[in-house]
Order: sequence, then structure tokens, then C-alpha cells
Amino acid sequence: MTANKTAAILIIGNEILSGRTQDINVKFIATRLAAIGHKLEEVRVVPDIPQRIIRAVNELRAAYDNLFTTGGIGPTHDDITSECIAAAFDVPWEKHQPTWDAMEKHLGAENFNEARQRMATLPRGAVPIPTAMTIAPGFSIGNVHVMAGVPRIMQSMFTGLEPSLGQGTPIAMRAVHGIGVKEGSIAAGLSAIQNRYPMLDLGSYPFYRETGGGVAIVAKGTDETALDAAITEAESLIASQDITAIKGEPPV
Amino acid sequence: MTANKTAAILIIGNEILSGRTQDINVKFIATRLAAIGHKLEEVRVVPDIPQRIIRAVNELRAAYDNLFTTGGIGPTHDDITSECIAAAFDVPWEKHQPTWDAMEKHLGAENFNEARQRMATLPRGAVPIPTAMTIAPGFSIGNVHVMAGVPRIMQSMFTGLEPSLGQGTPIAMRAVHGIGVKEGSIAAGLSAIQNRYPMLDLGSYPFYRETGGGVAIVAKGTDETALDAAITEAESLIASQDITAIKGEPPV
Repeated sequence: MTANKTAAILIIGNEILSGRTQDINVKFIATRLAAIGHKLEEVRVVPDIPQRIIRAVNELRAAYDNLFTTGGIGPTHDDITSECIAAAFDVPWEKHQPTWDAMEKHLGAENFNEARQRMATLPRGAVPIPTAMTIAPGFSIGNVHVMAGVPRIMQSMFTGLEPSLGQGTPIAMRAVHGIGVKEGSIAAGLSAIQNRYPMLDLGSYPFYRETGGGVAIVAKGTDETALDAAITEAESLIASQDITAIKGEPPV
Repeated sequence: MTANKTAAILIIGNEILSGRTQDINVKFIATRLAAIGHKLEEVRVVPDIPQRIIRAVNELRAAYDNLFTTGGIGPTHDDITSECIAAAFDVPWEKHQPTWDAMEKHLGAENFNEARQRMATLPRGAVPIPTAMTIAPGFSIGNVHVMAGVPRIMQSMFTGLEPSLGQGTPIAMRAVHGIGVKEGSIAAGLSAIQNRYPMLDLGSYPFYRETGGGVAIVAKGTDETALDAAITEAESLIASQDITAIKGEPPV
């Protein structure tokens, strides 16, 4: 066990910014990071523009213990992440011989064209991420971990990467739901609970359903005893409420 | 019609960073912005920490024509967006009399407690966003538009805001799917199409399904004639491919 490391995600993704694609990588990475005790502290989505990618990589790798990028490592003209990482680290972008040889053997020399050769071209010092799913690698360089954007491939790469990230105290989460409860009525009581458990993060999230709404109270932290105690208090707070049925209107 | 304005989204959201909640607000806002001809150029997710929110607001409102924030405007202790926006603009955070009066009347004086009064407290100069859905408002101040995090309420607020944003030339999108096509085989041809239509953004996105994968080629831009022509060329490129069935392995 080590202290909780910090992390950021950089999504290189015109397809997210255009609204064409629903990102699901953040939730996957966030959930896995929490389980191994890393704190995800920022996410950015930037377009496929070199200066924007380079600047974001350099800001985020300086600010957090680990940076995970997704997207832009395929063979087409819009896949520019790998070159940009090399530029961000100010190292040459060059043939990675083991990857080059493996791809050439796997695909056959006649299919290992210029586009595919770009996938075997990595920033100097990059270490490929082991994955069973594709011969074209993601890679780590320094504290930056470069993964595919396609969720299935990203997940395979993250799984390959995970053992090397180190285990911190897992960040646990407990939730209690108050059907019909209004946030504005429990706010003071919830604030008091937060003050009694400063080592936890308490969040309050209203929800709305056709059948009626309510509030989810979520406690998050590494101290399981405190989590159990805080959630018990939150349950009492909810039980103390005089519930009025919610009819359509947000329960402020 | 005006030139295409730029935009960013700032998600204030511990619940996104913990992996508990799947964000769906980005896709909604991105899609609507494209339809009214605004270019979404960046998304950030930051935790509920004042300095982090303030810094992100000031960086993003300086860099883009409009900034849309989601989350953190409810009545509980973890709802700190409104105060942070006031701090970012260096203006007082104060009672907004029309909102105060409307909420007090709507909820009844006995229910208009301190927590709910925080929702009627806005940065000086803020203009509430009209919405039929909730009496507690989102608001605009300068080029920053502050909305709820709950998707239904956010959508209602965005719809109230939309007429004031101004219409640019809509950013249209065309896509063509090549089942069984490998990205590495069409990369050179696709790059040539991109070079012939520099006014468009051409993207290539591999997909994987149990029944077989392929590539989606997406063209995006404001020039409909160029879009039609580029997509016709992309269709020809796909039709020219000698398709090999894909069995499990990513079609690089």
C-alpha cells in the first residue's frame, strides 16, 4: 500500500466534441482507478490539433502523478497522438524495432504499409503496454499512458497496464437513497455530517423518475469505519424526513 | 448567420471523477451546439474544489466565446459553483431579489430555509436562465452559462438559453460505414481525400461487433457541397476494398 496517487485523463477526440460519440472510457478508467486507490482529479477532452494535444499533455503530466490518454493511435491521418506525445516530451518519434518486427511478421510484409508502420513508430523511450487484443500497442512514457479510444481495446490496454500502477488504499464509496426526500430539507443535516467526518467526501445528488424522485447521498473515502458511521447517520437523517410525494417538480 | 463561435464545457463533478455517474451532458450539449453552428473545442471535468473550479472557469472563459458549466448549483454543502463563479469574476455573491421573491412565494416562507436561499444567491450581474422546469435558476454572467448537472434540468436550461446564443452556419456531419474494411488499408486513400477537401474534418473510427467490425468515415464541416463530394469519394474508396472477414482481431 502506498499513498493515493493522483491521475488525469486526456481524451483526444473530435468524435466526442462533435457529439457523435458518447464517451464511456472515463467511467471505466475512473472506476478502475478508484479500486486501486488512485484519485482521478481531472478529465480533459481536446480536438485532434497538435498544439492543443501537446499543451494539454504537458500541463496534465506536470500536475498529476499519472496521465492516461485515449484516442488517436490508429493508422489514419487523424491519428496524431503518438507524434504529439513525442513532441510534448521533446524526444524523437522513431521506429520501435520490436513492435515493427512483430507487426510486419503478423500482418505480412505486403500488408505492412506506410500507414501501419506509423503504429510501430513511437516516442523514443516509450514502453509498449502489453495487451492480448491487438498487435499495435499503446505505450507508456514517463508518467503518461497512451491508449486506444475504442473502448474494448482501451479496456484491454488498461488491464495490461494496471499491475504497474501500484496499489493505494482503495477509495470506497457508500450510497443511501432517500425516495421523496428534498435536498433543501436535508442540506443542513448533511452539512453537519460532513463536518463530523472531514476525512470523507459527502455528495448529494437529486434524481428524478416518472415514479417520483429523491436524493442519493454518497460518501467516499479510504476510512471504512468512518464511511460506515457517516452512512448510518445519513440513513437516520433520511428516516427523519416528512416525505411529501414529488410530482414532477425537482425536489429542491 | 454569424461566424462559428467557439465553446467549452466545464463539468463540476466529483460523481463523474469517481466513476459513479456516466456523464451524458457533453453529448447533449455538443450535439445542440453543432446544430446552431457553435464549435465545441474543449471539455474539462474538475472536482468540487473552489480553487480548481475558479481556475478552470477563468482559463476557459478567456479561451473560448462561450463556456457552459454543469453541476454544483443545488442547495447542499457540495454545491459551490455559484460562489466560485462570483469569485472567478471577482464580484459579490449576493441575494438575487427576483429569484429570492419567486422561490419564497413558490416554496412558502417556512420552507425557504438557509440552504434554499443559497440557490437565490447569485454573482452580481448574473441573469437567470429561463426554464419551465425549476424555480431555482441557472444563470449567465458574461460569456459563462451556469447550468444544473441533472440531465433533465440541464437540458431544460440549455433550451431556455439557446435562443440567446446566436446562430452560426450549422456544422454538418456525414458518415459512411465500411463493414470489414481495415483502417490501415484505406489510410492513404483517406488522407488524399482529406487533402482535396481541406475545409472539412475527416475522421476514421474503427468499430468492433460480434458480427464483424469495420470503419466509419466521418466528414464534418459547414460546406454541404464539399461534404457530399467528400463522402462520395469515401464511398468509392470503401467500395474498392477487397474485404476480408474480420474475426475478432482489431482491423488495423
